[in-house]
Amino acid sequence: MTTINAATYPIHFDEKAYNELNSLISKKNYSSIYILVDDNTLEHCYPRFMQLFTTDKPLEVIQIDAGEIHKNMETCMGVWNVMTELGADRKSLLITLGGGVITDLGGFVASTFKRGIDFVNIPTTLLSMVDASVGGKTGVDLGVLKNQIGVFANPEMIVIDAEYLHTVSAREIRSGTAEIIKYGMTHDINLFNEIKDNSQVNIVDLIHRSIEIKNDVVLEDPKEQGVRKVLNWGHTIGHGVESYFLENPEKEALTHGEAIAIGMVCEAYLSSEILDFPKEKVSEIKDAIIKIYGKVLINENDFQYIIELMKHDKKNVSGEINFVLLNDYENFEINCKASEELIRESLAYYNL
Amino acid sequence: MTTINAATYPIHFDEKAYNELNSLISKKNYSSIYILVDDNTLEHCYPRFMQLFTTDKPLEVIQIDAGEIHKNMETCMGVWNVMTELGADRKSLLITLGGGVITDLGGFVASTFKRGIDFVNIPTTLLSMVDASVGGKTGVDLGVLKNQIGVFANPEMIVIDAEYLHTVSAREIRSGTAEIIKYGMTHDINLFNEIKDNSQVNIVDLIHRSIEIKNDVVLEDPKEQGVRKVLNWGHTIGHGVESYFLENPEKEALTHGEAIAIGMVCEAYLSSEILDFPKEKVSEIKDAIIKIYGKVLINENDFQYIIELMKHDKKNVSGEINFVLLNDYENFEINCKASEELIRESLAYYNL
Repeated sequence: MTTINAATYPIHFDEKAYNELNSLISKKNYSSIYILVDDNTLEHCYPRFMQLFTTDKPLEVIQIDAGEIHKNMETCMGVWNVMTELGADRKSLLITLGGGVITDLGGFVASTFKRGIDFVNIPTTLLSMVDASVGGKTGVDLGVLKNQIGVFANPEMIVIDAEYLHTVSAREIRSGTAEIIKYGMTHDINLFNEIKDNSQVNIVDLIHRSIEIKNDVVLEDPKEQGVRKVLNWGHTIGHGVESYFLENPEKEALTHGEAIAIGMVCEAYLSSEILDFPKEKVSEIKDAIIKIYGKVLINENDFQYIIELMKHDKKNVSGEINFVLLNDYENFEINCKASEELIRESLAYYNL
Repeated sequence: MTTINAATYPIHFDEKAYNELNSLISKKNYSSIYILVDDNTLEHCYPRFMQLFTTDKPLEVIQIDAGEIHKNMETCMGVWNVMTELGADRKSLLITLGGGVITDLGGFVASTFKRGIDFVNIPTTLLSMVDASVGGKTGVDLGVLKNQIGVFANPEMIVIDAEYLHTVSAREIRSGTAEIIKYGMTHDINLFNEIKDNSQVNIVDLIHRSIEIKNDVVLEDPKEQGVRKVLNWGHTIGHGVESYFLENPEKEALTHGEAIAIGMVCEAYLSSEILDFPKEKVSEIKDAIIKIYGKVLINENDFQYIIELMKHDKKNVSGEINFVLLNDYENFEINCKASEELIRESLAYYNL
C-alpha cells in the first residue's frame, strides 16, 4: 500500500515499513530505544516486531497491564519511573506496540517525559490502526472520563502492519470495524456498504481508505476547532454509553466500537428528528449494527445518568452537549444540539 | 514598565497589567475562570488580585498545598479532578497566582486538561517573576527529579506585579536573586554588580532586565536545542545539590536559588579549570555568594551521590553531564564536559 503523508510524519504500510523505521533510527541517531507493550502484545506481537526490526542501539522493553482500565496516570507514573531508572534521555525513542491504550498512553508518556521525546506508533489492533494511532491525539483517562488528560503530539512515524491483526480477537476486530463504518457514513458510504453486505472484505484496503479519510480531516483541522469534530459521529452518545458500562462493576464492559456502534444508532435517530436524515436509513443503520454487534440492554432508569456523563465529555462547552449529525450519508453537520428529552428518546429507540 | 513581547504572548507590568487581563478575558469569551493558588497566595495575594481583577464570568478558586514537595503528579490529579467536578471545559481559563510551583504545575495542568486549555501566569515570587513563569516550560517533579514530566506550552499572558513581593520572605527574595545574578554573569554583568555592591537596588528594574534577557534567549531557541542552554548556568550542579537536600529528610531543604548559587560557585571553578575564566573572578563569585547566601556544608561522602543525581538531569544525554561554562563574564560556552574528578573538586572548592 502507498505511504500516506500526515502533517509532520509518514504512515508506512506492510513489511517495507520496517525498513523505513530502521532508516529513521539511523538518521536520528537516538541514544536508546524503549518499546512499550502490554502482556498481550509482548507475547503475540513483539516476536514478529523483533524479526523485522534491527538496531544496534540499546533497546529495552517496558510492559504495562492490558486494558482500558489501566489507561490512567498511575500507569504513566510507572512508565516514567522505569524510563528514568533505565536512563532514558531526551534523545531516546519510544516505540508503542499495541492497541489504542498503548498508542494513546505511550504518546502521552513520550510527549511529557523531559518535556517531550520522539515516539513511533505501531498499532496492532484494528481500532488503533484506523483511529487511535493517527491524528496526533494522545491521552489517558481520568476516572471514568476518557482521554481527559492529554496533549496533541505527532509521532515521528506510524507503521501499519495488518499481520498483527491475526493476534487479536474477532471481538476486537468488530470494535475497530465501528470506526470504519463511521468513516463510511460521513465520507464514503462504500465502506459501510462493503462491511454491511460482504463477509469477505479486504481489510487492508478498508484500513488504508479509513486512514486516508481521517488524515484528510486532521490535516484540515488538527486541533478540532471545526471540521475535525465530524470524527465524533456516534461518539457523543457512544462515549456516554462506554463510560456508563465501564463504571458499573456488575456490567460487562463494552468495547469502544460496541459503544460507538450504539452511539451511531442513537445519533442516526437524532439526525432524522433534527435534520432531514431519512428514517429508512436510521432503520438500515440499526439493523446492520445489531446484526454485527448484537443487542445490549440499556436500563431506562440509567438514561439520565448517561446524559450526565455526556455533559462531562471534553468536547462539550458550558454544559451543552454537542453532536455531529447527518443530513444524509456523506453529508454531515457539526455543532448540533439536541434536547435531553430527544437524547432519551434516541436511547429508547436503540433499546426498542 | 514597558510590555515585553514573548513568542506568542505579552508580559505586562504593574497595575495596568490587570486592565490587559480583563480585556483578554472579554475578547476570548472564556466560559469560566479557575484561579490556582496555594495556602500562602490565597491568604496574601488573592485579596489584592481580586481588588484589581473584575469579571462577570463564573470564577472558582482551586487551592493546593504550598511547597516544592507538592509539585508532583498527585497534586495535578487533585486539580484535574476538581476542575472536572466544577465543570471546567475547553473554553475555561486557568490563572496561576503563585510562585514557581504554582506557575509550573498550573501550566502543565492547563496544557494537558482536555488536551489543553488557556492559562495566564501571575508570578508572586521573585524566582517565578524572573524565571519560572517566562519561557514556556511547564512541569512537575518525578520523585526527586525536578521537572521530569512536563510540556512546552505558552500562557496567553504574564502579569508581573512587584507588589506581590511584599508577601514573600527575605529568603525567597534571595532565592530569586540567584537567577538575576545568573543573567548578570552570562549576559549583563551590571546586574551582578548591582546586587553585589548595593543594598538599595531597584528590584523592578532588575526584574524587567532579567525578563528581557530570558525572553531574548527563549525567542532565539524556544526548545532548548542550543543557546537556551545558557539559562542552565549554575543549574547542572545546582539541581544535583537541590535534589540531594530535598531527598535527605534529616537535612533542611535549600531554596532553588540557594542551590543554584552553590552551583554557580562550582561551575565558576570548572570554568577556570576547563576554559580561561579568570581565577580572581571565581573568588569574587564565591565571596559574593557566601555573603548573600551563607555557607552550607556538603558532606564529602555525598559528592558521588550528587553526581549520580546530576546524570539523571533531563538536560543530559547518554549519561554525559552537560555544562554551560564561562570564558569570561558575558561570554559563555554551552555543551561543555567535565570529568567526575573535576566536579568533585569543584564541590570541594565550594566547601573550602
